[in-house]
Amino acid sequence: MNKDISLQGFISELASNSPAPGGGSAAALSGTIGTALVCMVAELTIGKEKYKEVEAEMQEALNKGKQIKDRFFTFIEEDEEAFNKVMAGYKLPKNTDEEKQIRSNAIQSALKEAVNVPLEVIKNVRAAIELALLCASKGNTNSISDAGVAGLELHASALGALYNVLINLGSIKDENFKSQVKAETEKLIKEINEFAESIEKTVLSKM
Amino acid sequence: MNKDISLQGFISELASNSPAPGGGSAAALSGTIGTALVCMVAELTIGKEKYKEVEAEMQEALNKGKQIKDRFFTFIEEDEEAFNKVMAGYKLPKNTDEEKQIRSNAIQSALKEAVNVPLEVIKNVRAAIELALLCASKGNTNSISDAGVAGLELHASALGALYNVLINLGSIKDENFKSQVKAETEKLIKEINEFAESIEKTVLSKM
Repeated sequence: MNKDISLQGFISELASNSPAPGGGSAAALSGTIGTALVCMVAELTIGKEKYKEVEAEMQEALNKGKQIKDRFFTFIEEDEEAFNKVMAGYKLPKNTDEEKQIRSNAIQSALKEAVNVPLEVIKNVRAAIELALLCASKGNTNSISDAGVAGLELHASALGALYNVLINLGSIKDENFKSQVKAETEKLIKEINEFAESIEKTVLSKM
Repeated sequence: MNKDISLQGFISELASNSPAPGGGSAAALSGTIGTALVCMVAELTIGKEKYKEVEAEMQEALNKGKQIKDRFFTFIEEDEEAFNKVMAGYKLPKNTDEEKQIRSNAIQSALKEAVNVPLEVIKNVRAAIELALLCASKGNTNSISDAGVAGLELHASALGALYNVLINLGSIKDENFKSQVKAETEKLIKEINEFAESIEKTVLSKM
């Protein structure tokens, strides 16, 4: 992905008959969007007399949110790269036993990377969705729908990343790695689901 | 919004201390992303011997998907414009009774537009999410996680647009308009929720 790609250009690449960028990059983008909205709500709360009491919390949310947003942005590209590495692995020759071994090692190593990127997306959603709940609960109520959309985009990001973890995990042979990732994602997704539910309740109660 | 804005530039605008673009534009963007993935899965199914039987359906999904994707793209900007019109209405003078009346009319008319844009987003999600289920059910199984992310992004788009309908509806005085919009969105969201659930089940059963 070109760093300066236009919004329209990125959407066209996503829609094209090339499998990358695909759902993994889209999930990372959704996380970026959700975290950008967290930053916006914090920005629209800071400096307002009415919200003086929560100013420090909002400033901290803004600082954390900015960092997470930038990290998400890199995952859009990293997911595409990880996918391309898996594809390159499958294209390696497999005529001799040695070639078969080299090919298998390359695929397995690339698959682990293709699991690790969406796993990082999920971890970052876990951090960002907590900030989205803070924004929904204590942020500027004029921006309550924005905090709500932040929660929705972050939730979709995590569930989309989960699909990408699961589809790649299916071809991984390292059972230790598999069970470790499964346990970690299960715990994170459970927490994220709970945050998403709290955000929805909070938003609907304020509208 | 500049038509050629970079992806990074759009995210920065979203995160900034300006309330527009905000959650409404983000919800429309989420719909664009989901529909782009529908197009991708259809593209990756068309022309494959294994999927010859569903080729005509996939071609139709691709054609419809492309149209919806382009429509979503315009809503990103239209939501921002509608929001700015509401803000401009609130800034009108209110010194005399006549000014008050002009101001109130301007606000009410702008609020209706700010409801109609997310309502259009929801209608387009309803059309696109049906295509996402088709892609998940009959599309290339190598792209099953992409069809899944399409469903998630479209669902988040509709629920995000719903928040934007509800927040603007709260200030609208025309009771007929309000009850009509409420009934229409309720029906659409119910259908969209059902499609989202079917997509999730289909995707998880194939992974």
